[in-house]
Amino acid sequence: MRTQNLSEKLIQWRRDFHSYPETGFLEMRTASKVAAILGQLGFKLQLGKEVMSEHHCMGKPNGNMTKKHYHWAIENGANKEYIQNFADGYTGIVGTLDTQKEGPTIAFRFDMDALDINESTIEEHYPAREGFNSSISDKMHACGHDAHTSIGLGLASLVASNKEKLSGKIKLIFQPAEEGTRGAKSMVKADVVSDVDYFIASHIGTGVPHNHFVAANNGFLATSKMDIEFNGVASHAGGNPEEGKNALLAAANASLNIYAIPRHSEGATRINVGELHAGSGRNIIADKAYLKIESRGEDSSINEYVKKQVESIVSGAAAMYQVDYHIETVGEALSCECSNDLAAVLNACAQDHPTIEQTCLASDASAGSEDATYFIDAVQKKGGLATYCVFGTELAAGHHNELFDINEDTLLPSVEILYASIMRLNAS
Amino acid sequence: MRTQNLSEKLIQWRRDFHSYPETGFLEMRTASKVAAILGQLGFKLQLGKEVMSEHHCMGKPNGNMTKKHYHWAIENGANKEYIQNFADGYTGIVGTLDTQKEGPTIAFRFDMDALDINESTIEEHYPAREGFNSSISDKMHACGHDAHTSIGLGLASLVASNKEKLSGKIKLIFQPAEEGTRGAKSMVKADVVSDVDYFIASHIGTGVPHNHFVAANNGFLATSKMDIEFNGVASHAGGNPEEGKNALLAAANASLNIYAIPRHSEGATRINVGELHAGSGRNIIADKAYLKIESRGEDSSINEYVKKQVESIVSGAAAMYQVDYHIETVGEALSCECSNDLAAVLNACAQDHPTIEQTCLASDASAGSEDATYFIDAVQKKGGLATYCVFGTELAAGHHNELFDINEDTLLPSVEILYASIMRLNAS
Amino acid sequence: MRTQNLSEKLIQWRRDFHSYPETGFLEMRTASKVAAILGQLGFKLQLGKEVMSEHHCMGKPNGNMTKKHYHWAIENGANKEYIQNFADGYTGIVGTLDTQKEGPTIAFRFDMDALDINESTIEEHYPAREGFNSSISDKMHACGHDAHTSIGLGLASLVASNKEKLSGKIKLIFQPAEEGTRGAKSMVKADVVSDVDYFIASHIGTGVPHNHFVAANNGFLATSKMDIEFNGVASHAGGNPEEGKNALLAAANASLNIYAIPRHSEGATRINVGELHAGSGRNIIADKAYLKIESRGEDSSINEYVKKQVESIVSGAAAMYQVDYHIETVGEALSCECSNDLAAVLNACAQDHPTIEQTCLASDASAGSEDATYFIDAVQKKGGLATYCVFGTELAAGHHNELFDINEDTLLPSVEILYASIMRLNAS
Amino acid sequence: MRTQNLSEKLIQWRRDFHSYPETGFLEMRTASKVAAILGQLGFKLQLGKEVMSEHHCMGKPNGNMTKKHYHWAIENGANKEYIQNFADGYTGIVGTLDTQKEGPTIAFRFDMDALDINESTIEEHYPAREGFNSSISDKMHACGHDAHTSIGLGLASLVASNKEKLSGKIKLIFQPAEEGTRGAKSMVKADVVSDVDYFIASHIGTGVPHNHFVAANNGFLATSKMDIEFNGVASHAGGNPEEGKNALLAAANASLNIYAIPRHSEGATRINVGELHAGSGRNIIADKAYLKIESRGEDSSINEYVKKQVESIVSGAAAMYQVDYHIETVGEALSCECSNDLAAVLNACAQDHPTIEQTCLASDASAGSEDATYFIDAVQKKGGLATYCVFGTELAAGHHNELFDINEDTLLPSVEILYASIMRLNAS
Repeated sequence: MRTQNLSEKLIQWRRDFHSYPETGFLEMRTASKVAAILGQLGFKLQLGKEVMSEHHCMGKPNGNMTKKHYHWAIENGANKEYIQNFADGYTGIVGTLDTQKEGPTIAFRFDMDALDINESTIEEHYPAREGFNSSISDKMHACGHDAHTSIGLGLASLVASNKEKLSGKIKLIFQPAEEGTRGAKSMVKADVVSDVDYFIASHIGTGVPHNHFVAANNGFLATSKMDIEFNGVASHAGGNPEEGKNALLAAANASLNIYAIPRHSEGATRINVGELHAGSGRNIIADKAYLKIESRGEDSSINEYVKKQVESIVSGAAAMYQVDYHIETVGEALSCECSNDLAAVLNACAQDHPTIEQTCLASDASAGSEDATYFIDAVQKKGGLATYCVFGTELAAGHHNELFDINEDTLLPSVEILYASIMRLNAS
Repeated sequence: MRTQNLSEKLIQWRRDFHSYPETGFLEMRTASKVAAILGQLGFKLQLGKEVMSEHHCMGKPNGNMTKKHYHWAIENGANKEYIQNFADGYTGIVGTLDTQKEGPTIAFRFDMDALDINESTIEEHYPAREGFNSSISDKMHACGHDAHTSIGLGLASLVASNKEKLSGKIKLIFQPAEEGTRGAKSMVKADVVSDVDYFIASHIGTGVPHNHFVAANNGFLATSKMDIEFNGVASHAGGNPEEGKNALLAAANASLNIYAIPRHSEGATRINVGELHAGSGRNIIADKAYLKIESRGEDSSINEYVKKQVESIVSGAAAMYQVDYHIETVGEALSCECSNDLAAVLNACAQDHPTIEQTCLASDASAGSEDATYFIDAVQKKGGLATYCVFGTELAAGHHNELFDINEDTLLPSVEILYASIMRLNAS
Repeated sequence: MRTQNLSEKLIQWRRDFHSYPETGFLEMRTASKVAAILGQLGFKLQLGKEVMSEHHCMGKPNGNMTKKHYHWAIENGANKEYIQNFADGYTGIVGTLDTQKEGPTIAFRFDMDALDINESTIEEHYPAREGFNSSISDKMHACGHDAHTSIGLGLASLVASNKEKLSGKIKLIFQPAEEGTRGAKSMVKADVVSDVDYFIASHIGTGVPHNHFVAANNGFLATSKMDIEFNGVASHAGGNPEEGKNALLAAANASLNIYAIPRHSEGATRINVGELHAGSGRNIIADKAYLKIESRGEDSSINEYVKKQVESIVSGAAAMYQVDYHIETVGEALSCECSNDLAAVLNACAQDHPTIEQTCLASDASAGSEDATYFIDAVQKKGGLATYCVFGTELAAGHHNELFDINEDTLLPSVEILYASIMRLNAS
Repeated sequence: MRTQNLSEKLIQWRRDFHSYPETGFLEMRTASKVAAILGQLGFKLQLGKEVMSEHHCMGKPNGNMTKKHYHWAIENGANKEYIQNFADGYTGIVGTLDTQKEGPTIAFRFDMDALDINESTIEEHYPAREGFNSSISDKMHACGHDAHTSIGLGLASLVASNKEKLSGKIKLIFQPAEEGTRGAKSMVKADVVSDVDYFIASHIGTGVPHNHFVAANNGFLATSKMDIEFNGVASHAGGNPEEGKNALLAAANASLNIYAIPRHSEGATRINVGELHAGSGRNIIADKAYLKIESRGEDSSINEYVKKQVESIVSGAAAMYQVDYHIETVGEALSCECSNDLAAVLNACAQDHPTIEQTCLASDASAGSEDATYFIDAVQKKGGLATYCVFGTELAAGHHNELFDINEDTLLPSVEILYASIMRLNAS
């Protein structure tokens, strides 16, 4: 494939995904297209539950939403051959190209999901002006995962075209549900990276300037997202107050005490009860209460500490009011320490690229949370190297903003730097 | 009007109101029909804001709901001549018949509103079998106010027919929004009973057996219904937790401490936070929180004590978290001590009625809360006598139940006993 | 014994006990004197652990306090023969006189303990003026138990003198630690009343006017007194906040939620956290916290309900903060319903007594809590009759006041009424 | 003065102070001796309230304790001439030596107070073995302030002996009550350093190895120590629960919510409620409650943020329960950023000293809190330079430990380094 063509392809893919944004565990149309392209390029495909542990999927939408979206995907251009594989919302894909020559297994992670945001339609918004803005309300690729998916397909194209020059195996991981840090763990638990020597995740933007490159981003906070439910017993508050088991009070107590979790001397923590909904009538002892909670920690063990305290508090608050409770972890991510040696390889590739003006070997800038950290952790624990790099781009507005947009000029260099890293790792 | 005819009329009216249930401050169709009938019978009419203080209406639906219901009322048989008077949701009516002879002013209160309940349509449910069950979903006359309105119109008929035999003035008060104890106060504050010598409120059912009669019900608990809102400042819980003003925490604290309001040594209290809703996202410090609260007290001063504590607690909880708050009283009722002398008159009337098997002069049985107590209080404070009587009837199911139904045989005797009380009070 | 002499004796005994007040489970001097007198009068004696279940003594002082008081008792005129029996703080006595004639077993309960109050020494205070006020600071007979003990000995004298006229058995129970409702349960559990047909407890004063008599007091609230301890882990609040297990927070949470225990629809409740002490330094996460709690209920099952909620809340609060807890019940009493037939007998005896001006068969006046209710409950459960009567007297100041004093004229009539009840019960 | 002599003097002074430890605002014996020596050396003296703002003394003991200690000081060797100046507990001293030659004003701060710790008397404890351990129980120089005072006197001696070689003014500040960070602010507010060009505070030990030196310690956390009192209304919890204003509940709420103060995104915070004491009896609504609180912040503004939240929470908790409250700040300290240029001067002096093996120009090691930061802040704000240096020494046990002891070999080098800094600053 000629570079000119590839560049056009990248933009075309990206705009197609941008027009049809799909949120976590519903990336059916996207995944069907990715699978079709990878298959055509000669990659061996592993799809859906083959690469996702059901038990470790977090925050997956319910069956109704999944079924409804399936029909939407079919009506909106999903690939008919592959769509069946993703009908149940397990939308992960691993495409492997085995060069049949001895060499390392190198994996790349691309995330595919969009956000519950209503994209702007004003003239100043480039996707709107060019007519590739979101085709549906309240969903939008406002974080750049449309670009990531496109880059992944571009990398697949280059790898396939240059297969003869390569050795070892190339694994391209297309992950669902990075938003809310929900999807990575299920792929790791399905052993997707257990054979991987080098692992590279990447993100576009995140405040890194256009044509700059960060080879290792270490600033991720570990996080846990928890949905908590209390189930008590309703009773008439005037007639039989003593017969109620008050879920609202359990939830209020839990909330208050969760904020009171002690600071940790070894690093920053965050804790929030973002939502509390309890009760169904003024004069009824509330039998149901729901909390949406998020913890963060400067490293995984600090976040684990906060999460343990949350569990104690919720359990104690439920015991106080003799109500039942259920804690569901609907998202989770680790902190990470990227592998210097691998970052150095990427850094060198970026420095060699004609468009890159500045590179940074490693950054500690706080960058929220990312569940690619599960892959990084798993690879490093097996002795492999892993890093998380960032391709700087010009942003029209911040991530998760209705006016978010990238500069499409960043797509091709990103593909080329990743491809170059394979060459270097093969050579080393 | 012959008794035979009146009995048929009572049933016809009651079934019409039953088929078109309207909830508090939306009784437009009902009120338009009541006004038309009273007008035809020669009663002087005072309508809407003439008999309701805007400032003292509690828990009135918003403009949109009111406007929407107005159109429904027009489409569903409202009286075209009178409907305009009630378009804004002030649906109270006072019909006065002045005999032009010297004598006392005697007032009767009838409430007109229905409940947000979905009426059963099973064959065993008499209104369903007979085809006069609710014509709309989620609204139902499940407390008997359809019967009350019908009795009020029956009494108007008897009074009009027998005008020559009577002296003084007869005032028939048709009150909106008794459910939630929201409507009476606004009519009292509009001076509807400031000239009243005798005031009689009545209810059908409430556990009193068929053909039994209670001349004075003293067991009402004073109550306050409060909606509370906390307004804080949202901030990103990970990025700038110190910038938030946490409305969820203010609400959780208020809830917990409201339940901790001390018992009162002089009588029973009740307090409930029935609903708490706060926050809009897992990772955002919640800037909004809402509580639905209800207090009760064995008498008005005890309820007032509880309400004052609620106010202190809410104000303190808001101060803790530097958030604003607003308490809106959306319903309120007093306790009462009926006038023995007036109860004795009614008791005698009931004992004289051929259908009545047993009477009770005064009962302390707990009967929830009632805002007719505002009328009782106002009349007694001016030196008048007031009572709250109950017409026993056979109930198919408890009040506020989807299978609730009365025995229509109770309608005519109820009218006749009330009418008889006028004769006796004129004679005394 | 001539009545003249008995009256003098009663005053002499009462003043002796008044001068040497002993608090709960330390009534060693008192008990030694009681035992000596009963023994001399021919009563069969059961002492200390013979009539008290160790396991059911609540709120007993520790060994050091007990030992220290023992020496005080010896130095302050305790009876040398009997003091050994009470050295360990088990100070209960049962004296039984068996007439050897067939007849009922009739038991009387007298309590012996004083209060931790510093008696006034002002001239206006009769015991001070007459020189029989408390010989030690911070202890005082401010509730009349000195009179009760004296009445018990007076009754013993009359019974002994008139043994020939009596049938059945007479049991005189001298109970420790009624204050704090701590001592009765242990005597009941030692089967002290398992053979009793008639049981009569009595109190002087309690607001009943001089020369009035109440034959049955039913107004006692059931109560539980609990001491709660939380044990956590201290840590430096600046250096290692995450290592602490915060007992102060567990106690604060427990306190707040204990007040929030729902009202009970079947009767009044009370709950109080009277004391909270936690922590040992500003900069240390508190590892210890203590609560003093009291619950009350209109009847025993309602109090039991409150107590159960306390237990849930304390257990939940401890779980929240991962601290250990211990709840010790240090006092407890039941509600009671006196036996009408026995009350009628006492009422008749009182009506016959020349000094009594007015009697009341049964009163529901709230009278705090009393652990004689354990005896009443046990006797009634075995089919016996039991009552709690009150001898009205003139009080210089309210019970538990430093100026409390009774009118000693009440002593002799009290003895005579109790004696008369034996005669009547023997005759019936 | 010959060095040999000075070294002996330093040890003699230090041991004298060690034997007679005096806690904050009670350093009367110590101050009287310091004043006498400085006076003898020709320093101009400013004493007590001349150098302390009454209004800004925090956590000062009450009058009784002060008076009692005054007598102790007199009986234990206080200097008779100067003791009167410190009788009221204002024990600060500023000794100024004006060389009458143009030059900078250089100030040194030495703290004098001991701790409420019972010094060990075991043989292994050097002060005990040598017989100079604390002469009284529960007070001990366990932080090295005895050494500091001795070093200050040593510096005074050197300065006086070498007066001719110096220019400008030398100010020696002897500060009370550094423990609890209570005394410095009052000296700053009395303008003690408003004319100072260079300010040097110092500490011995703090984990810096023997013969090491840190020229600038920047790791102090800002802190506030607060005593909080709630005043409510007592009432009988059984009889009149509604009449109480519950201080225990206000305190429990305040405690819980104080721990829930949000983390700050710009730096670490700490918050602790170390003690809570409330209530006086099981059955009484508590009318008094006390909290001991400590906040910390990575810098002064972060600590100020925490303190403001504490104030809101306390005020809100009091409002909730309609109780009064009082917050007293009983200690406070700032964070600091030492002046590099002045640190460089000291570092050079230390490097030149024969005993010093290693120096550190600036350290961020967390070192708790210090109120010398008030002096540093005031001097820097006026354009002067200020630093806080540390003389490493061998510690027998950690600071605030009953076995704490320094190596007295550190005394003379400390004096000499400080003296050398004057020489250098004069020369520059």
